[in-house]
Amino acid sequence: MDTAVKTGTDTPTAKKVYVFGNGGADGDKSMKALLGGKGANLAEMCSFGLPVPPGFTISTECCAYYSANGHVWPAGLEEEVRQGIAFVEKAMGMGFGDAKNPLLVSVRSGAAVSMPGMMDTVLNLGLNDDAVEGLAKLTGNDRFAFDAYRRFIDMFGDVVMGVDHEHFEEAIHALKTERGVTNDVDLTGEDLRELVNRYKAIYRRHTGFMFPDDPFEQLRLSINAVFGSWDSDRAIKYRTINKVRGLIGTAVNVQAMVYGNMGQNSGTGVCFTRNPSTGENLLYGEFLVNAQGEDVVAGIRTPEHIDQMAQEFPAAYRQLLEATQALEKHYKNMQDIEFTVQEGKLFLLQTRGGKRTGPAAVKIAVDLVKEGLVDPAAAVRDLVEPRHIDQLLHPRFDEKHDYSADVIAKGLPASPGAAVGQVVFSADHAEEQKAKGFRTILVRIETSPEDVGGMHAAEGILTSRGGMTSHAAVVARGWGKPCVAGCGDIVIDYKTRSFTNGTTTVREGDWVSINGTTGEVILGQQPLVEPALTGDFAQFMEWVDQFRAIKVRTNADTPKDSKVARDFGAEGIGLTRTEHMFFEGDRIEKMREMILAENEADRRKALGKLLPYQKADFLGIFRAMEGLPVTIRLLDPPLHEFLPHTEHDQQVMAKEMGVPVEKVKAKVESLHEFNPMLGHRGCRLGITYPEITEMQTRAIIEAAVELRQEGLSVLPEIMVPLVGTVEEFKDQKAIIRRTADAVFAEKGASVEYLVGTMIEIPRAALTADEIAKEAEFFSFGTNDLTQMTFGYSRDDAGKFLPEYVERKMLADDPFQTIDVGGVGQLVRMGTERGRSTRKNLKVGICGEHGGDPQSVHFCFEVGMDYVSCSPFRVPIARLAAAQANLARKA
Amino acid sequence: MDTAVKTGTDTPTAKKVYVFGNGGADGDKSMKALLGGKGANLAEMCSFGLPVPPGFTISTECCAYYSANGHVWPAGLEEEVRQGIAFVEKAMGMGFGDAKNPLLVSVRSGAAVSMPGMMDTVLNLGLNDDAVEGLAKLTGNDRFAFDAYRRFIDMFGDVVMGVDHEHFEEAIHALKTERGVTNDVDLTGEDLRELVNRYKAIYRRHTGFMFPDDPFEQLRLSINAVFGSWDSDRAIKYRTINKVRGLIGTAVNVQAMVYGNMGQNSGTGVCFTRNPSTGENLLYGEFLVNAQGEDVVAGIRTPEHIDQMAQEFPAAYRQLLEATQALEKHYKNMQDIEFTVQEGKLFLLQTRGGKRTGPAAVKIAVDLVKEGLVDPAAAVRDLVEPRHIDQLLHPRFDEKHDYSADVIAKGLPASPGAAVGQVVFSADHAEEQKAKGFRTILVRIETSPEDVGGMHAAEGILTSRGGMTSHAAVVARGWGKPCVAGCGDIVIDYKTRSFTNGTTTVREGDWVSINGTTGEVILGQQPLVEPALTGDFAQFMEWVDQFRAIKVRTNADTPKDSKVARDFGAEGIGLTRTEHMFFEGDRIEKMREMILAENEADRRKALGKLLPYQKADFLGIFRAMEGLPVTIRLLDPPLHEFLPHTEHDQQVMAKEMGVPVEKVKAKVESLHEFNPMLGHRGCRLGITYPEITEMQTRAIIEAAVELRQEGLSVLPEIMVPLVGTVEEFKDQKAIIRRTADAVFAEKGASVEYLVGTMIEIPRAALTADEIAKEAEFFSFGTNDLTQMTFGYSRDDAGKFLPEYVERKMLADDPFQTIDVGGVGQLVRMGTERGRSTRKNLKVGICGEHGGDPQSVHFCFEVGMDYVSCSPFRVPIARLAAAQANLARKA
Repeated sequence: MDTAVKTGTDTPTAKKVYVFGNGGADGDKSMKALLGGKGANLAEMCSFGLPVPPGFTISTECCAYYSANGHVWPAGLEEEVRQGIAFVEKAMGMGFGDAKNPLLVSVRSGAAVSMPGMMDTVLNLGLNDDAVEGLAKLTGNDRFAFDAYRRFIDMFGDVVMGVDHEHFEEAIHALKTERGVTNDVDLTGEDLRELVNRYKAIYRRHTGFMFPDDPFEQLRLSINAVFGSWDSDRAIKYRTINKVRGLIGTAVNVQAMVYGNMGQNSGTGVCFTRNPSTGENLLYGEFLVNAQGEDVVAGIRTPEHIDQMAQEFPAAYRQLLEATQALEKHYKNMQDIEFTVQEGKLFLLQTRGGKRTGPAAVKIAVDLVKEGLVDPAAAVRDLVEPRHIDQLLHPRFDEKHDYSADVIAKGLPASPGAAVGQVVFSADHAEEQKAKGFRTILVRIETSPEDVGGMHAAEGILTSRGGMTSHAAVVARGWGKPCVAGCGDIVIDYKTRSFTNGTTTVREGDWVSINGTTGEVILGQQPLVEPALTGDFAQFMEWVDQFRAIKVRTNADTPKDSKVARDFGAEGIGLTRTEHMFFEGDRIEKMREMILAENEADRRKALGKLLPYQKADFLGIFRAMEGLPVTIRLLDPPLHEFLPHTEHDQQVMAKEMGVPVEKVKAKVESLHEFNPMLGHRGCRLGITYPEITEMQTRAIIEAAVELRQEGLSVLPEIMVPLVGTVEEFKDQKAIIRRTADAVFAEKGASVEYLVGTMIEIPRAALTADEIAKEAEFFSFGTNDLTQMTFGYSRDDAGKFLPEYVERKMLADDPFQTIDVGGVGQLVRMGTERGRSTRKNLKVGICGEHGGDPQSVHFCFEVGMDYVSCSPFRVPIARLAAAQANLARKA
Repeated sequence: MDTAVKTGTDTPTAKKVYVFGNGGADGDKSMKALLGGKGANLAEMCSFGLPVPPGFTISTECCAYYSANGHVWPAGLEEEVRQGIAFVEKAMGMGFGDAKNPLLVSVRSGAAVSMPGMMDTVLNLGLNDDAVEGLAKLTGNDRFAFDAYRRFIDMFGDVVMGVDHEHFEEAIHALKTERGVTNDVDLTGEDLRELVNRYKAIYRRHTGFMFPDDPFEQLRLSINAVFGSWDSDRAIKYRTINKVRGLIGTAVNVQAMVYGNMGQNSGTGVCFTRNPSTGENLLYGEFLVNAQGEDVVAGIRTPEHIDQMAQEFPAAYRQLLEATQALEKHYKNMQDIEFTVQEGKLFLLQTRGGKRTGPAAVKIAVDLVKEGLVDPAAAVRDLVEPRHIDQLLHPRFDEKHDYSADVIAKGLPASPGAAVGQVVFSADHAEEQKAKGFRTILVRIETSPEDVGGMHAAEGILTSRGGMTSHAAVVARGWGKPCVAGCGDIVIDYKTRSFTNGTTTVREGDWVSINGTTGEVILGQQPLVEPALTGDFAQFMEWVDQFRAIKVRTNADTPKDSKVARDFGAEGIGLTRTEHMFFEGDRIEKMREMILAENEADRRKALGKLLPYQKADFLGIFRAMEGLPVTIRLLDPPLHEFLPHTEHDQQVMAKEMGVPVEKVKAKVESLHEFNPMLGHRGCRLGITYPEITEMQTRAIIEAAVELRQEGLSVLPEIMVPLVGTVEEFKDQKAIIRRTADAVFAEKGASVEYLVGTMIEIPRAALTADEIAKEAEFFSFGTNDLTQMTFGYSRDDAGKFLPEYVERKMLADDPFQTIDVGGVGQLVRMGTERGRSTRKNLKVGICGEHGGDPQSVHFCFEVGMDYVSCSPFRVPIARLAAAQANLARKA
């Protein structure tokens, strides 16, 4: 690489350094590509007339040049940097390296998008043995000056030169021991002077160089470190994984230091333009007199409420109030602002959109629209995140109460929300207690379909095994019930009916609380706040729907869930799992009778007994979803899931059914599979036992026709699961059509209905053109599709998947967020190929991903007609869908 | 559809009917598209001057017209058919429907390719109440005439009019009962006259029409039935599944009947131009005096050897000999010929390529080349099928000995060949008996990796469970050891050490024989013929390799297998499964030590003990494959496969290793997976435990360097299994490179080696472009790729897959023949995308499909560099590869 031309990077011939300060700036907020986000915002604040410490930004083009040209600066950069320093010196009335009145600066990286992996901040740059004396004199504070100096050596050594921070920590620790003190603040100015010398020695030992006392040399090295960090492994990996493309480099921000710890007329603070917990329109924040930002963070002193500042620094407070209100108006969003008062003078150090709770986000969005600051589109696009909506839909712990001392374990945040109850260790027990009016937390090593009754009866579920997509987690999320799963911190002992984290033992009947949003398990009854669907929330969701271009359905198996989802805005059902209906009460007995049947006639007899139950279920669901489409999936799981697997349960079942236990055992044995996920299930069952498909179709169509006869509008969509070849689908479709025709003839009336299929097997996506010739709709079952495309069993992936995500071998858990690069290819292919042979093919998704905001964006991009998710995620999906549409328009 | 133009089918304006007979023909063998295969061959034989009963062929264009035009004949067809009949009448000197001298004809369908599902033959057409009397007089045989008549009514009713053959059967049965006779031949002419009346009544009852007595009406209806059968469901399905495209319809062949049952100077027979068992160049066949073809088939009378014909019909025999030799020369292949002698006159009824055994196929191919009849390319392309080669590679049962009376059960033909031995029920027992010099058949419900020692020691393996790709089947095929798998006919009882088919019980120590080619289980010691790799075979395979454009490697895990494969022509190893090496002898103990290790240090210690074994294995394999590439796959199966699963075995293991049995149990429990196929295996192990990858790499590279230092050429290719993301591959590649570099540094020498990956996960195929940036070769693991693309577990698919194949929902078992429509898409995509980012990417296949001829064709079409298969399939793959190349050239 001998020329810039070869690498495609032009030598920046134009301006390289952009100054800001003294009420003006070379740049503005539109110049993020050239100045980075931070640089552009600092310039904007200055032009806006706000008091910002002066400084300058080196453009991203310089970084690109440095990168492409063997780590040399472009011609003219040094000259412009020196001019930048001169500008700051003038603005501050100080001199860089001046022994009397030294200008100190901070150096920070800043690309167009925020990016972990690049260089941290260097503060107090410009200090050397002369300047430190000047600073000491100027501030009249030896201790302050030498503390700043030793911190600078530590930061510069660590961040710029790669000397491990630990070495400096050891030195200060040793000094404290020598002096017989425990806190840093107990070291005197003289001690710190000594520490500076020790730090310099450490620096020399680990770098091989003297600590540079030329401020400009300090600056040059720091700028190089920022440039170099752009090409660090971490930064490159971050950009690869997050698909950050089209950026040429990072900018470098050099800014004058200001101090809030120069005495009683100085101070520092952070504030929000509105209350970040409630959204109330009042300045909210904290302030600390004679302190630096670090002190606030370190929590050594307790900060005062921002109102106190009005008392102590009335002028600065007034100025702050005006500035923050102006910034909020300017940025059209609640702002999080850092500021410092140096000897009575206010400086703004940073402004950014403030983090907020769900209730606050919605209130602020609605208020800003009412105040005319933003229009509803902007409110929906920018001011509320899907996770905010999530918080509004579940009971939560009272933020005013700190329970951290009672946390005894932490597991996976499997289903959000808070729950409080008395510990039980079996599903039956949970049901008994519920019947008696007690609240329980069901604690299991893991759960199985047989536990659903108890899971439903409990307030929350805690398991010691299983991941985010374990049975407990999936079922709990479906109900919006809090669940902490895979909590390896605890050991459960069913025999003694207790669990322990090694130190604390919790017994049956003890009160615990679980936080499904954080994964925490907490002792005792923690106070709860119930969700309130306030007027603001309703208003906001109304706006959301104005900007949505993809429908949102729900996955629901009961009339009750259907009702909840419809109240949350679901526009139909995307997935009804008929098998869940077979577990309740005495239905499971009929189901088992069917499974044990030795011939078709006996099987039909048992199925005949199940028919009225299924029909009743469908009547209820169709009523709840009147006028909206309802997709019903035919039987999916392998039959062995309906049989008991322990010796004892098999004996009970044999006795109840009046058959020899050997028969039960033999059936369990014959149904055993090595990989049930890839076994005899889905439409493979309906093909082997067509009478099952017949019974289910009959239940659906009879229910639909009867309601139709009552004058209701019913739109059934019958879905064949696990199709891999068009022949399988044709086989099942023929049975469905034949059965429906028979019902129509019997009833003397008919209904419109569709027959379609899940696309959940890679081969189905690959041959979607053939399948769509026969199928009237597709619903992507991305849970199974992800399992097969990756070759991951979700029940087993816990052994390696968390490590993959942690090591960034995968950007996200593909069971939570759709894997666009792999699984997404099949989804896109399936959609496009399907529509190539059936133009008006209805396409949706009914995997867990249907409720994940990122995945909803993808589904929208692919051109799906709808997404379907559990009832408690419907509002979240609605928001994500609207944001996807607004993002495309933007 | 009102005109032919709209449907794209032109009215055949040209000739519609092509006559043949009397030494001439309108058509020839090049006209298959127009006349069908049968019609073209009959014309060819006639033109060739051979005695063929005269007749005519209605072109396929007429069928297409009929199909597209509401089932009407094209204008002029009736006229031409009448002319055709006139031609036959003249040639035969008989009259169609003539009461004195009636011409009878046969009507047959015949498209350009042989196609089941179309119309069967109608014989004796032209008979009616008048003609039958003429036939009776002419032959002086009432019984003959009325038997022909009643057969005609039956056939016509069944084949043309759809009257179930059963109805006619019932009538003849009733008549026999009335007459008190048991055999058809005991019915008199008078009886048959009565039967004709009853048959006509049945015909009328089921069709609603009188039986047509106008011969031309009979003919018209039969021709329509042939035309109509082209569009039957069965025929359409056959064409869809077998991808028969571009055909427009079937031809119809109408041909004069001749009779071999007209007395002692008549007869009928079939012959082969060479011996179909041995290939010997001598006319081979059977002959029956005064009989029809059906009688030979029915086996009522025992036919005589063809030589006998020379005695009884010297002139006709001489004529036959000349004709058959001429046909063989003409068709350049051994022919299977049907003929009839009617009153001393020879008629040829059919000629086609003759079916033959493997040894015969090779001998005939080599002989025909030597005789100058074909060139080697034609011999390789047309005269030997891959399954012929298969027969040459295994001991087989002596064809001269009929064991059918001793067959007690039938299972899947899982690994071809014959084996004889005494029954044992445990792997250990097989090994003990082997050590004592006894031959055994290992009988297991199913086998597991722990059984491999005993499986190897046994002559053959019989399992009652598992499919063509079960553990037993795969391992047995790998060794070329006969195996009958999934034999559901038998029930095995380990306790009593016996198995039974319900009637016969076989006990430990009893002799049985198994036929892995047919799946039969036979009582006793059946006589065997050992394979002989004769000079002809070697010569043939030499020609094969001249026409091959894709390499053939082998899957081999031991030096011995490598040697066998190399002798069979393998050009390297495409897959060495390193895990098989961990089961032998005391290696399994070290492996278990590694698995039980509680930290990395202990794991490394155990791995250190395994290293010398692995290295020794690789030294042996590299030596056996000197100068050829050797692909070694890193550890693939989940770790629990190395641990015992029964209580007893766990206790033994705990005792041997000196650890508490609870520890063993806990480890087994912690490694348990719901779907091990999709669990913690493949590179996921190497990522969790990098030290395993390190040890294996070290063993490979140390062995390679040491041999290199001896002057040998070693070409290792290290293969990372189960890669789904490029990040996984990069992780493992970095470990491999780092370890190899360390070995090179230690040894002061290096070797060239490649690092590549299996493509066996759908996601890997989808992202092959990314993966190929890092991987130097791809090997498609189509076993797993098929499992995941279809969502079929091969261990469990036995519950539905056989039914799918039987019902033609799948054309083939996708684990035997690659599923071109689905899995094949991923293979093609993976290859193309891989080469899009690495032009010279080496691509192969190492799944079971590498040895399946159809799949080899596909791999060739996709552009792979090689296929790899078990040693005993290497010659088969070589032939398939050559045929694929010759097919493309053709």
